[in-house]
Amino acid sequence: MATKLITGGTVVSATGRGKADVLIDGETIVAVLESGSELLGTDLKNSVGQVIDATGKYVIPGGIDAHTHMQMPFGGTEASDTFETGTRAAAWGGTTTIVDFAIQRQGERVMDGLNAWHEKASGECAVDYGFHQIVGGVNKDSLQAMRSLMDEGVSSYKLFMAYPGVFYSDDAQILKAMRVGADTGMMTMMHAENGPAIDAMVEELLAQGKTTPYYHGVARAWQMEEEATHRAIMLANLTGAPLYVVHVSAKQAVEQVAAARDNGQNVFAETCPQYLYLSLEDQLGAESFEGAKWVCSTPLRSKHEHHQDHMWQSLRTNDVQMVATDHCPFCMKGQKELGVGDFSKIPNGIGSVEHRMDLMYQGVVNGKISLERWVEITSTTPARMFGMYGKKGVIAPGADADVVIYDPRGHTSIGLDKTHHMNMDHSAWEGFEIDGHVDTVLSRGRVLINENQYLGSKNHGQYIRRAPSQYLI
Amino acid sequence: MATKLITGGTVVSATGRGKADVLIDGETIVAVLESGSELLGTDLKNSVGQVIDATGKYVIPGGIDAHTHMQMPFGGTEASDTFETGTRAAAWGGTTTIVDFAIQRQGERVMDGLNAWHEKASGECAVDYGFHQIVGGVNKDSLQAMRSLMDEGVSSYKLFMAYPGVFYSDDAQILKAMRVGADTGMMTMMHAENGPAIDAMVEELLAQGKTTPYYHGVARAWQMEEEATHRAIMLANLTGAPLYVVHVSAKQAVEQVAAARDNGQNVFAETCPQYLYLSLEDQLGAESFEGAKWVCSTPLRSKHEHHQDHMWQSLRTNDVQMVATDHCPFCMKGQKELGVGDFSKIPNGIGSVEHRMDLMYQGVVNGKISLERWVEITSTTPARMFGMYGKKGVIAPGADADVVIYDPRGHTSIGLDKTHHMNMDHSAWEGFEIDGHVDTVLSRGRVLINENQYLGSKNHGQYIRRAPSQYLI
Amino acid sequence: MATKLITGGTVVSATGRGKADVLIDGETIVAVLESGSELLGTDLKNSVGQVIDATGKYVIPGGIDAHTHMQMPFGGTEASDTFETGTRAAAWGGTTTIVDFAIQRQGERVMDGLNAWHEKASGECAVDYGFHQIVGGVNKDSLQAMRSLMDEGVSSYKLFMAYPGVFYSDDAQILKAMRVGADTGMMTMMHAENGPAIDAMVEELLAQGKTTPYYHGVARAWQMEEEATHRAIMLANLTGAPLYVVHVSAKQAVEQVAAARDNGQNVFAETCPQYLYLSLEDQLGAESFEGAKWVCSTPLRSKHEHHQDHMWQSLRTNDVQMVATDHCPFCMKGQKELGVGDFSKIPNGIGSVEHRMDLMYQGVVNGKISLERWVEITSTTPARMFGMYGKKGVIAPGADADVVIYDPRGHTSIGLDKTHHMNMDHSAWEGFEIDGHVDTVLSRGRVLINENQYLGSKNHGQYIRRAPSQYLI
Amino acid sequence: MATKLITGGTVVSATGRGKADVLIDGETIVAVLESGSELLGTDLKNSVGQVIDATGKYVIPGGIDAHTHMQMPFGGTEASDTFETGTRAAAWGGTTTIVDFAIQRQGERVMDGLNAWHEKASGECAVDYGFHQIVGGVNKDSLQAMRSLMDEGVSSYKLFMAYPGVFYSDDAQILKAMRVGADTGMMTMMHAENGPAIDAMVEELLAQGKTTPYYHGVARAWQMEEEATHRAIMLANLTGAPLYVVHVSAKQAVEQVAAARDNGQNVFAETCPQYLYLSLEDQLGAESFEGAKWVCSTPLRSKHEHHQDHMWQSLRTNDVQMVATDHCPFCMKGQKELGVGDFSKIPNGIGSVEHRMDLMYQGVVNGKISLERWVEITSTTPARMFGMYGKKGVIAPGADADVVIYDPRGHTSIGLDKTHHMNMDHSAWEGFEIDGHVDTVLSRGRVLINENQYLGSKNHGQYIRRAPSQYLI
Repeated sequence: MATKLITGGTVVSATGRGKADVLIDGETIVAVLESGSELLGTDLKNSVGQVIDATGKYVIPGGIDAHTHMQMPFGGTEASDTFETGTRAAAWGGTTTIVDFAIQRQGERVMDGLNAWHEKASGECAVDYGFHQIVGGVNKDSLQAMRSLMDEGVSSYKLFMAYPGVFYSDDAQILKAMRVGADTGMMTMMHAENGPAIDAMVEELLAQGKTTPYYHGVARAWQMEEEATHRAIMLANLTGAPLYVVHVSAKQAVEQVAAARDNGQNVFAETCPQYLYLSLEDQLGAESFEGAKWVCSTPLRSKHEHHQDHMWQSLRTNDVQMVATDHCPFCMKGQKELGVGDFSKIPNGIGSVEHRMDLMYQGVVNGKISLERWVEITSTTPARMFGMYGKKGVIAPGADADVVIYDPRGHTSIGLDKTHHMNMDHSAWEGFEIDGHVDTVLSRGRVLINENQYLGSKNHGQYIRRAPSQYLI
Repeated sequence: MATKLITGGTVVSATGRGKADVLIDGETIVAVLESGSELLGTDLKNSVGQVIDATGKYVIPGGIDAHTHMQMPFGGTEASDTFETGTRAAAWGGTTTIVDFAIQRQGERVMDGLNAWHEKASGECAVDYGFHQIVGGVNKDSLQAMRSLMDEGVSSYKLFMAYPGVFYSDDAQILKAMRVGADTGMMTMMHAENGPAIDAMVEELLAQGKTTPYYHGVARAWQMEEEATHRAIMLANLTGAPLYVVHVSAKQAVEQVAAARDNGQNVFAETCPQYLYLSLEDQLGAESFEGAKWVCSTPLRSKHEHHQDHMWQSLRTNDVQMVATDHCPFCMKGQKELGVGDFSKIPNGIGSVEHRMDLMYQGVVNGKISLERWVEITSTTPARMFGMYGKKGVIAPGADADVVIYDPRGHTSIGLDKTHHMNMDHSAWEGFEIDGHVDTVLSRGRVLINENQYLGSKNHGQYIRRAPSQYLI
Repeated sequence: MATKLITGGTVVSATGRGKADVLIDGETIVAVLESGSELLGTDLKNSVGQVIDATGKYVIPGGIDAHTHMQMPFGGTEASDTFETGTRAAAWGGTTTIVDFAIQRQGERVMDGLNAWHEKASGECAVDYGFHQIVGGVNKDSLQAMRSLMDEGVSSYKLFMAYPGVFYSDDAQILKAMRVGADTGMMTMMHAENGPAIDAMVEELLAQGKTTPYYHGVARAWQMEEEATHRAIMLANLTGAPLYVVHVSAKQAVEQVAAARDNGQNVFAETCPQYLYLSLEDQLGAESFEGAKWVCSTPLRSKHEHHQDHMWQSLRTNDVQMVATDHCPFCMKGQKELGVGDFSKIPNGIGSVEHRMDLMYQGVVNGKISLERWVEITSTTPARMFGMYGKKGVIAPGADADVVIYDPRGHTSIGLDKTHHMNMDHSAWEGFEIDGHVDTVLSRGRVLINENQYLGSKNHGQYIRRAPSQYLI
Repeated sequence: MATKLITGGTVVSATGRGKADVLIDGETIVAVLESGSELLGTDLKNSVGQVIDATGKYVIPGGIDAHTHMQMPFGGTEASDTFETGTRAAAWGGTTTIVDFAIQRQGERVMDGLNAWHEKASGECAVDYGFHQIVGGVNKDSLQAMRSLMDEGVSSYKLFMAYPGVFYSDDAQILKAMRVGADTGMMTMMHAENGPAIDAMVEELLAQGKTTPYYHGVARAWQMEEEATHRAIMLANLTGAPLYVVHVSAKQAVEQVAAARDNGQNVFAETCPQYLYLSLEDQLGAESFEGAKWVCSTPLRSKHEHHQDHMWQSLRTNDVQMVATDHCPFCMKGQKELGVGDFSKIPNGIGSVEHRMDLMYQGVVNGKISLERWVEITSTTPARMFGMYGKKGVIAPGADADVVIYDPRGHTSIGLDKTHHMNMDHSAWEGFEIDGHVDTVLSRGRVLINENQYLGSKNHGQYIRRAPSQYLI
C-alpha cells in the first residue's frame, strides 16, 4: 500500500509552524492533518501503509537548489560530480530538487544544448531536476530559439557578463536577449561581473608575479560585481525584463539590488553559503595552494569589509531572496591543480549541494534567521521564483511528497570522511559543525534517506517542467 | 455534528494557491485535503455535518484588520461604530479578526484603560478581537505597567508623535517607552506625524482664513510625516526597539522605512485603503464641506505627487508590509459637522472595516498585486506581525476555522445603501465597484455570512491573547 | 604704449564682486586697484596708453570653453567650423580660451594625432587654445604615449564608452588607460553612454521604421547614460583615477556623480547649454527633419522628466561643476541631411561656442544661479579643472589679460542673421533673447571685440600648455 | 604715512595662488599688484610708509571664526574668555574677525540681548566682531523682534534643538521662527541635537552610575545628532528657510546635509577642529576627570566609526562648507570641576579660537585639503556665508586690510605655556605640533602681531554690520 503518514512532527512553512501530520498517497501529499492521526473517527496510523514518526522534529518541504552545475565543462576539465553523484549527494543533504544549467555556446544551437543536458541527466538522478538555459552565444538563431524554451518547461535563461570568449555577452547582446525575456515572461538570470575589466586585472596581477589563489579574489574586486549588477539592472529597467542576479557576494551589489526593488523593479538576488561563512583572507588566502579549494566566481569577499554579516542581514530583510549553492565541484588532484602558478587557470567552483540545508539551518541556530525564513530561502522561494510552486516548495495537498524530516537535536560534522557523498577529494566545508541533522528524506513519496542510509536509485529523479516565476506581478 | 467540509475551492495562501478541501471540526480546521473529498476510502462529504461548496471560488484565511478604533472617544465625540456594529460590519466584509486600541491617557492607569476596553468589547463582538495598548501618558507608572501587558495577551503598544495635549509623547517619553519595548519584546507602534509643528501650521492656516477640510491636508504636509517617521526610526535604532509605523501615506515616509530595513532594522509599515485610492484633491478638496468625510490623519496625499502609485508599488515589493483600515468612523451629522468653519475641529477618521478585503482584492483585479499578496497583506502578515499566527492568518490544521470564501465572479457595489453595515450616515467609499464578492464567512467554525445574510451574533467574538511578533528575528 | 586701464566697472570673481580698476601692461594684468584710478598720487588714467570705460558693466575673466571640436572628422564629414571661424565666433561671444580635442584612433599614434591638431590650429586662432587628447585606440603603444602627454602640456585625455568601431574603448581598455591616468595625474574625461546597447537600440528602432531625429533621443535613453556614468565611476574607484564626465544631460547621471563625490571620489561633471534649455520634445521632436539641428550625444532629454530643472539646480549646488559647449557644428545642407531617413546617419553636434556666456548669463537673470556662479562655471572652474588657473580664469596680477566687459543693460538677440559668426547655415539657438551683452573682449591684452566690431586676427591665439587639475587633492 | 606694502609673498585665495604685492592705504587694501613693486615707473617700495617682506610666505585674508561664545553664561558659570582676552587670542592665531552670539532667553527681549552683547564687546576687542542672535525663547514678541535684526546688521539667528529649559525650541517654535527666517532672508543656524531624548539618556546613565566625562559622549549618541539634523532640514524644506547646521560632528549628520543639498535645498554645515582631530575614546575617555576638558556639544565621536576621516573628506568635497571653533572655554578649576561625579554638570565647551588657522593648515600639510581650500573654509566661505564678503574674506582692492602672513617654514607648538593666550588653565590642544606659523597679522591695516609680539589694543576691533548670506541664490 502506497500510503505513508508522517506523524508527530512540527510542520514548518515559509510563514509559520505547527504540529501536524502529513498524509502521502503514492507520490503526492494528500492531506495535512491535525496531529494525532485520527480523522472523523478513522485511526489513520492503522490505515496507512507506513508510519514515519517525526516526533520532536521539523517536517519541511524538500530543499530546492536552484543553481547547480553537474558535470559542467569548464576550463578544459569538467565538474567532478555527475548527475548521479551530485543528485545523490543532494538527497543526503535534504535537497530533493535541483535546477541545473543546460549550455549553449557561441556557434551552438540552444536546443542542442538543452537536449544534451537532458541526455546527461535522464535516468541518472536521485532527485527531481529542472533546467535553466545558458545562452552563451546571443544571436538571431539563439534569440529565436529562446522563444521555444517556455514550451520545454524552461522558464529562465542565463547570461554572463563575465568570461569573455566563453559565455560572455556584451551589452548589445544582453539588451536583445532581455527583450525576449520581457516578451516571453522568462526570468533573466545574470552572472554579474565585469569580465573584460577583470581580465585586464588578471593580466596585471600575473605580470606582477601575483599568481596564488588569493589574487583570484583581488582580480574580481567588489567594484567589478557592483558595476555589473548595476548595469544589468539598468538594462532590465530599459527593457522591462525581470532580473535574477546569481551568486551575489558583495554587499555593494546587494545594495544595488535593494535600491532597484525599492524603486519597483522586479529584481531578485541569490546568494550562496560560501558568501555567508567564508572569506578572502581565511580561505582564499590559505597557505600555499590550499586556497584553490575556494576559487569560485564571484569570489569570497574580505571579512574586514563585513560582506558576510551584511549578507546574513540581507537574507533576513529579504534584500536577498534565496540561497542556492552554485555547486560546481572540482578535485584538487588534476583539476584545481591546473592553476598552480597561475590562479586564472584554477577551475572555478565549490561543491556544497550536500550541505546547503545544514549550513543554512546553522543560521537559525546562530540567530541570524528564523526557522520559517530557513524554509523560505531554501525551498519555498526557489519554488515560487522558478515556477515549481504547488508541486514543490510547500507541504500541502496536491504537492509532490518531497519532504525532509530535520532533527534539531541531531548533529552533523561536515568533512571529507563524514557527511560527504560528493565526488570530490576534499571538502570546502571541512570541519564545520552543524547543530542539527537531516533525518529522513522523501522524494515524490519515496524514502531516499533514512537512518543515515541511502535508499534511493539513480532513475528515480524526473525532469520538472517549470512555469513562469510567481513573482512577476 | 459540528464538522464542516469546504469543498472544491482554490485555497490561497501567502505563498501560493491550489485546489483543496478544508475540513473543520467545531471551531478548528483539522485538515486540508486533496480536493475530491475522499480520504483513505472514506467519502468525507457524507461523513461531515455540513458541506460548503466553494467551487470556482477562493478559500482564504479570514481577514485581519489590525487597526480599528471602535467607539473611540475623540475630540469631544466618539467613533460611531460600537464593538457590536463595527465587528458585524467587519464580518460582512470578510474580516474575522480585529485588533482595537485600548487607551491610557495622561493621568490614567494603563490597566484601567485595558480593562475599560475589555468591558466595552466583551459580549459585543461578532468576530474575534485583540487589543493594542495606547500609552498616551508615558511616566514611571505607565512604563512599569507596560511590563505586564504581555501577560495580558497584549504584545504591542502605541505611541503618538501627534496630538499634543491628547495622546502625544515627546522624544524623551518615546525613548523611555522604547526601552521597555526593546526589553520586553513588545512591538512599538507609532503614529508618526510631527504634532507640534502641525499645530503651528493649523494655527497659521486658520489665521489666514483657510478653514475648509482641504487645509487639513495642507497642515499635515508630507514633511511632517516623513520627519516623524525618520525620528521614530532613529529612536528605535538607538534603543533597539522594533518599530511598526501605522497608517503610512507619504511616499517619502515609505522611503524612510525602506532605508531602515535595508539597513537591517526591524521597522515595518502599514498603509490603509484610503492612501491607495483617494487623494487630497479629489476627496479632501471636494466641494463645500463634503471633504470632511475624508478627514483622517495621516491625511490623504496629493495625486500630483504620485503617493498612491508609489504605495501600491511598495505593497508589491514589501517595502510596506500590510494593510489595515484605521477604522474610526464619524457621522457627518453632529460629528464631522463640529468642524464647519474650522477644519481642526473635524473628528479625524474614515470608516472602512467592511470594505478592506474588497478594496484590496480590486488591487488584484487591477494588476497591482498578486492573489497571494492579497492574502498576505490582509491576513497572514497581520497574524504574524501581531502574534496570532497559527490560530489566525492561515488555512492549516490546528488553526481557528476563520475562513472566507471569496467569489471572483461576484460583484460588490459599495455605498451607503449597498454594502454598508457600519454605523455611519455616509460612506467614504460611495460608488466604488468591486469585481469580486465576499461569499461566505466563517469565524471559529461558525458561518457568519452566507447568501448575503448575517447569521452571527454579538456574543460570538472572543478575546485573542497575542504572542510576540513573529518578525523579531 | 602697451598699457590699458579698465575703469569704473564691477569686477566679478567666482567668490564675489566689487568696484575695481584693472591695469594691463602688454599681455598681462599687472594690478587690480581701488576704483578711481589714483594710486599713491599718480593719476593712472593719464599715465596709461588706453582707458576703457566699464562704468555700469561687469568685468570678468574671459570665458573658457573646455569642450570644442573644431573641424572634427565625424561620420564621413567634418565639423563646419575651422579653428579660424570657430575661435573668431568664440571671441564674439566672450570666450577667450578653448580646449579642443586632438584625436588618436585605432591604428594611429597618439603623438601623430596631437601633432596633426597642432598643425590645424597653429596660426589660425583668434583666441588661445589648448588640447585634450582623445585616445580612441587603447593599446600598448597609446598607453605608453599617454605618459608623454603631460610634457606636451596636455593634462587630460578622453575615452569613449560610445561609438563602437570609432572611438569606443571597452572596459578592459578603460581600466588600463585609467591606470595611466591615476599614475600620471592626468584627468580622465569620459563620454559616458553605453555604445553597444545604444547600437542595438538603433538597430531595433530603424527596423521598426522609426527613422526621424526624435528617435535619436529614444535610442540614447537616460538609462544608457546613467549606466555608463556609474560604470566609469566604479572603474575610477578601482583604479584611483580622477574622472570628469563630459556633457552630462540626464538627472540620473548627475545623481551618480553626486553620490560618488559624497563618497569622496574625485569625480566631476560638465553640462552644456543645450541640456539646460532644450528638450527631446520641443527640439529633437520638431516637425519633419528640423529636429536634426539638435542631434547631439548625449541627447536632449524629455521635459516631462524635469532633467533641465534638475540640471540648473545641480549647477547651483555644485553637483555639476562647469559648463562647456561640446561645440561641434554641422550644416543642415550636405551634413545633417546625410541622415534623412536614418537618424543614425545624422552627424552629431550642436554649435554653441559663440553663445555660451550669454546663455549662462541668462541663468543669472532668470534667478537660477548667482553672478559669481556664472563666472565660476564659465571661466574659473574650467581654468582650475584643466590646469590653466593663474594665467586664465581670474582677474589678478600676473594673469593673462583675458577680460570680458559684459553689459547687463545690453541685449542680445541670437539667430543666424543676428549674433552668429559660426560657420553654420542655421542656429540651434534661433530666437533666444538674452538680457545682457558682450561689450568688449580682450585676449592677452589685445582688444578683440569692441562696439560690435571684431578687431582680432587669426594668428593671435597661442597654444596653452596646461598643468594638472587643481582639484586633485 | 598710512600706506603699507606687503611684498614678495604668495597671495592665496579660495580659487588659487600667485605671487603678488598688496598695497594698503589706511584701513583698506587699495591694490593687488604684480610682484616686484613697480607700477608704471613708480617704485612702490620707496613710496609707501612701510614695507612688509613676505618672501617665501603665504599672504591670506585674515581668518574668520564665525562661531564663538566669549564670556557666555552657561550652567551657572561663564565662558572664561572675555571679549578682550578672546579676541586677543584670536589675533595671535591669525583670526581677524569673530562672529559671536548675542543671547535672548525665555522671558527676555531680543533687542535687550543684542544690546547687552554690544555693551560687553564694545571697546574690548582686538579684532572686528559681528553678532549672530540666539533666539532662546520663540514667542510673538521675539518673532516680531527678529524682523528688525537685519537692520541691526545681524543677518543670522540661531535656534537650539538641545538644552530643554535653557535655549531649547520645540518644533512649533522652530517652524514659526523659520517662517520669519524665510521671509526676511536671514540664515537660520541650528544646534541640531535631540535635547529631550538626550536628557532621558543622561538620566538613565546617571542612574546607572555612569558619571564620568566619557558618558557625555554616550548620552549624545550620533543618532541624536543625525535625527535633529534631518528634522531641521525637513522643517526648512517646508518653510523654505535657508539652514546652517553648526558644529556637525557625526558623519551621518553630514550625510543628511549632503542629501539635502543634492536635493537642491540651501542647507550648509560647519564643523570644528575638534571633530577632525579628537575622539570619544582618546580624549573624552581620558583617565580620571581629564576628559572634562573635551566636554562639548555635539560631542567628540568614536574613532572606530571613522567620523573624523569622513569629516576631512567632507571638507574636501564641500559636503561641509566651513570650519569655526565653537570657542567656549572653561577652566578646569572652578568650572569644569562642577561636573565631578556628574558629567551633565560639566560646562560644555572647548577653547580653540587661537589655534583654528594652524590646525586647519596642518590639514594642508597632511594632504587632507588644498592650500586654497584652507583659505576658503577658514575665511572666504565664512565671509560669504554670513554677509561680510568684500570687506572680509578676500585680498582685493576695497577690502579691509585684514591680512595674515603665514610662514610654511615656521613651526608652532601648541600648549598652555607655548602658543596660548586664551584665558584657560589648560589647553584642549596640548602637544599638537603644527608645521607652519602665523607670522604677521594685520587688522584693518594695523599690525596686531609681528615677530611673536602683540601690537594691538582692545579698542581697535569694530562691530561689523552684516548683509544677507551670499549663498541664498
